[in-house]
Amino acid sequence: MICGLQASSDAGPIQQMHPLMCLSKYPVAFTAKLCTDHSRPKNPGPMKFSMVQLNEGSSFNGESGVFTCPRDGVYYFAVNASIYGRGHCAIYKNGEKVASLYHANSGDDRCTQVASMSSVLKLAKKDEVWIQVFGSRYDILATEDNDTVFTGFLLGFET
Amino acid sequence: MICGLQASSDAGPIQQMHPLMCLSKYPVAFTAKLCTDHSRPKNPGPMKFSMVQLNEGSSFNGESGVFTCPRDGVYYFAVNASIYGRGHCAIYKNGEKVASLYHANSGDDRCTQVASMSSVLKLAKKDEVWIQVFGSRYDILATEDNDTVFTGFLLGFET
Amino acid sequence: MICGLQASSDAGPIQQMHPLMCLSKYPVAFTAKLCTDHSRPKNPGPMKFSMVQLNEGSSFNGESGVFTCPRDGVYYFAVNASIYGRGHCAIYKNGEKVASLYHANSGDDRCTQVASMSSVLKLAKKDEVWIQVFGSRYDILATEDNDTVFTGFLLGFET
Repeated sequence: MICGLQASSDAGPIQQMHPLMCLSKYPVAFTAKLCTDHSRPKNPGPMKFSMVQLNEGSSFNGESGVFTCPRDGVYYFAVNASIYGRGHCAIYKNGEKVASLYHANSGDDRCTQVASMSSVLKLAKKDEVWIQVFGSRYDILATEDNDTVFTGFLLGFET
Repeated sequence: MICGLQASSDAGPIQQMHPLMCLSKYPVAFTAKLCTDHSRPKNPGPMKFSMVQLNEGSSFNGESGVFTCPRDGVYYFAVNASIYGRGHCAIYKNGEKVASLYHANSGDDRCTQVASMSSVLKLAKKDEVWIQVFGSRYDILATEDNDTVFTGFLLGFET
Repeated sequence: MICGLQASSDAGPIQQMHPLMCLSKYPVAFTAKLCTDHSRPKNPGPMKFSMVQLNEGSSFNGESGVFTCPRDGVYYFAVNASIYGRGHCAIYKNGEKVASLYHANSGDDRCTQVASMSSVLKLAKKDEVWIQVFGSRYDILATEDNDTVFTGFLLGFET
C-alpha cells in the first residue's frame, strides 16, 4: 500500500500512487522581503518584512515580522541581508538569539554587500521566530536592487 | 496503516513501514556550479551553470541554466556567488526578478568575497527559474577555489 | 487511503489523515556552531562545530564535526562563516571538496563579514560530509555575536 492510494477517483491510478501527495495538506513556507519603507531598521524588536511573497500555511505575519509555529516540528530559517555600513542582526527564537550575523564594510570604499545566516530549529507550537537588529548597527538595506529576505519552511512534523 | 506498508514483499517489515518512502518517487533537487569558462558572465540571459553536480528529476538544464518546474508546488532556490569587484544578479522567475543581490568590494584592497541570496517560490508547472546578471556588474567568479553555486529543491507539491 | 490512516486510535480522525505524519519517523537535521574555543581553526581536518543545537537523527558528531549519512538519499548542507581577514573553507564529501568558499577582507578597514556556501548532495549510507579549512586562510570566527554555523538536513530518501 503506497500512501496516497484511494485518493479521489478522478486522479487516476498514477497520481493516486504519487508519494509526494504526502506533503500536500499542511505546507508551511514563507518568503518575505524588507520593504523600502523599513530600510535601515532602527526600531527595536522584530524587523518588519512586510513584502510577503509567499505564506503557505499563513504562519508568517508581515505586519509584525514574526513567524508563529503552527505545530511542533523541525523548521529551516534563513536571512539574506543587504548591508551598507554595519549590520548586526540575528535569528531570534522566543526572544533568544539562536544565530547571529555581523557584517561590516566601513572604509572609504565601502559598498553594498550581502551577508546570510541560517538555522534549523526544533519548535513547539506557538514558538516565535524572527529577525532582529541588535546594538546600533542597523545599516541593513532594502532598495529595488538590494534585497533583504527572510525565508522559512517546515522540514518535518513531530509525532 | 503507515504509508509504505505493503510495498514489495522483499523489502521486509521495517522498510515497508518506513514513512520517508513517501518522498522517494518524484524527487526534484539540483546543484550546479558556474564553470570556469563562464566566469564573469557578460552575456545577457540566464547564467550558465554547466557543472551539474546533482539533477534529481532532471528539471535543471545545465546548458541553458534554466530550471523548469515539473509540477505545481513550492520550491526553494539559492545562489552563492563568488565576487571580485562588483556583482549584481538575481533569482528570476519567468523573466521577473524575485530576489536581487548586489555585492561589491572595489577598493584597492578588494578581495574575492561570497554573497548569497535565496527564495522560496510557489511555482506552476512549466514556470522557469534562473540566475541572471543585470546591469554591467558581472564580476562573478568561477575558479577552482571560488565557487558560484545554484541550488534548488522541491519542498512540497500542491494537490 | 491517505498515509497515516489507522495510526494510534487516540490521534483522532484528522490527525490520522495528516499527510505530514509521513515525515515524522526518521528525521535527519542538524544545526551546529563553531564554539569560541575553536575560533580561527588552524588544525587540518574537519572543523569542530561542537555547539550542537539540533541533531535530529544523531547523524552529526559535534566532537569530530562530521556528518555520517544514515541512509542513501538527498541531503542539503550549508555553512555560514564569520570571517575577519581571510577565510578559505569548503564543504567536503568523503575527503573531496564539493563547494569552496573564499572570502577575504584584508585592508586597513577590514571588518568582520559573513560568507555562505551550500550544496545539495546525493549520499550513500556512511558517506561523510564536513566543513574544512584549506590553505592557511583560517580567519573564521566564533564569538558571542559572530556565529559560524553548519547546517544540514534530509530532503528525501532513495528507494
